Amino acid sequence: MRATLMYGAGDVRVETVPDARLIEPTDALVTITRSCICGSDLWPYKNMKPNDGGRRMGHEFIGLVDAVGRDVRTVKRGDLVVAPFMWSDGTCVFCHEGLQTSCLHGGGWGSPDVDGGQGEAVRVPQADGTLVVLPVGRDDALMPSLLTLSDVMGTGHHAALCAKVGPGRTAAVVGDGAVGLCGVIAARRLGAERVILLGRHPDRIALAREFGATDIVSERGEDAVERVLELTGGLGAHSVLECVGLEQSTLTAISITRPGGAVGRVGVPQDPSIPAARQSFFNNTTIAGGPAPVRAYIESLLPDVLEGKIQPGRVFDRVIDLDGVPDGYRAMNDRESIKVMIAL
Amino acid sequence: MRATLMYGAGDVRVETVPDARLIEPTDALVTITRSCICGSDLWPYKNMKPNDGGRRMGHEFIGLVDAVGRDVRTVKRGDLVVAPFMWSDGTCVFCHEGLQTSCLHGGGWGSPDVDGGQGEAVRVPQADGTLVVLPVGRDDALMPSLLTLSDVMGTGHHAALCAKVGPGRTAAVVGDGAVGLCGVIAARRLGAERVILLGRHPDRIALAREFGATDIVSERGEDAVERVLELTGGLGAHSVLECVGLEQSTLTAISITRPGGAVGRVGVPQDPSIPAARQSFFNNTTIAGGPAPVRAYIESLLPDVLEGKIQPGRVFDRVIDLDGVPDGYRAMNDRESIKVMIAL
Repeated sequence: MRATLMYGAGDVRVETVPDARLIEPTDALVTITRSCICGSDLWPYKNMKPNDGGRRMGHEFIGLVDAVGRDVRTVKRGDLVVAPFMWSDGTCVFCHEGLQTSCLHGGGWGSPDVDGGQGEAVRVPQADGTLVVLPVGRDDALMPSLLTLSDVMGTGHHAALCAKVGPGRTAAVVGDGAVGLCGVIAARRLGAERVILLGRHPDRIALAREFGATDIVSERGEDAVERVLELTGGLGAHSVLECVGLEQSTLTAISITRPGGAVGRVGVPQDPSIPAARQSFFNNTTIAGGPAPVRAYIESLLPDVLEGKIQPGRVFDRVIDLDGVPDGYRAMNDRESIKVMIAL
Repeated sequence: MRATLMYGAGDVRVETVPDARLIEPTDALVTITRSCICGSDLWPYKNMKPNDGGRRMGHEFIGLVDAVGRDVRTVKRGDLVVAPFMWSDGTCVFCHEGLQTSCLHGGGWGSPDVDGGQGEAVRVPQADGTLVVLPVGRDDALMPSLLTLSDVMGTGHHAALCAKVGPGRTAAVVGDGAVGLCGVIAARRLGAERVILLGRHPDRIALAREFGATDIVSERGEDAVERVLELTGGLGAHSVLECVGLEQSTLTAISITRPGGAVGRVGVPQDPSIPAARQSFFNNTTIAGGPAPVRAYIESLLPDVLEGKIQPGRVFDRVIDLDGVPDGYRAMNDRESIKVMIAL
């Protein structure tokens, strides 16, 4: 079968790899119908050291179940399924607590045994815990929005929950990538009265406004902080969604949070420490977040997607086939595209 | 009147200063009957640069109202009152939210106009918002425990709340100072099933056990982390109270927190950043806390103190008069004493 490998910064190739196959009795074999490129894939695209073996890429997909191991109970051949960006058994103590990203027997996509999502097929370990059956056909018009349940929409939702968004509160979203845009959707969905997006790209800003952003701050650094404080009567936002992961964006997030407010961070931290330890302390700022347990969120977000109440699939502004993946990385990295969908 | 001033590291003096007096119509003038030395006073005692003018010290006290300004409504001459370690107006948006430490018109003790708690008298700004009347006589046996409502007991309570202590959960307390010991009381009071104290001093450990600590970890650094993980089935504690403020203690706190758990930090951070940004991210660790809004907690903790359900006053293991203050600092800094009470 064919799949995407990264061999180093800027070096993405689609190659023939061994066919995905069942290994454990709890596995499913899934033929991928939709996949995509993640903002987090751009970190290695910028920084990865050359690796002769290549690294299998992709962790967001929808596909058809092709076969299941003998212990699989909840999915069957022919089901259309969506997978979260990490697999999990659904039975351990953390899965029961809704924190499937810390599953004691779970893991990530992209090892040779497990395959990556940017390819033709995937072995899905712990299929019962991992996969969610979708009640639509494989080419349903909702496919882009359903695909976001794999990662970005659930991640934006996690940021909003961790930032304690609620009715009447003011939220601010740091970052206008696909996750930030989904954060805008999530903040409005959870009742935020006001949603301030910090971003600079006209196409993203336009989409953010359609998703419900009420204010846009295009300044950077200190100027951005000042502008958000101006917009919030000098106090800051109750809830700040950090959707980038850089030290500067984290500093901005902490600096625009109202005393007693919360930062929900979902941008993968690129630095070893969190800045502004004393500022966040003296303001009693809560800093929460991490990899989103999207498996826990699929069930709560799915009805809103099916009913068309939220349309996170609009973050996809380009559709490619598998051969187009290397150029898809380039386009996202060059900010030509917000998020690229792969149709197989 | 006489009051305590610090002129530099290790240089504490009791001197004659201008008498405390009413300035604003919202002030009260309070004659102090009990005060104490705080663990946070030891940071300048270790590090303060020489200062010719001296810095007025002390932010925890109980006293008798001697006079009130014409706009004061809730306290009157003769009332015995306890003050939180920051004053606040009780009417601003943050006070209404229970975050009096961020009061828009509040501040700290220790400027010449406001006086410090380690002296004979204090001008109390915003008396209605700041002071709480105590329903006991000035020499009541409960005085030590009532005095802890000024800071350490409320601070331990804040750490426990921020760390999301609750019934059935395992708490760990980093630091065996007076705040850590009050954190043990607070964790048990909020229903923690198990309370692990990280500390090394036999007298403090003995008191922690009486306060309800179920396990003691006396190792340091990596060894301490390993021991807590052993005690918690490899998972870590749900709730970790950081009661020190150093980078190492914060790293330990984050490292012993169970995925999805929370660190409640009340030790004043001595470093510009919070370590282990990636570890706390990948574990979805919540980091919360800051200066405790003890004004908000006095009302909820006071009944338990009056009924003898909690006895935080036991952290005081030495009573001195005002002349004894310099030696009191030395004794706490040398760990001869857990916490020193000043009786006037």
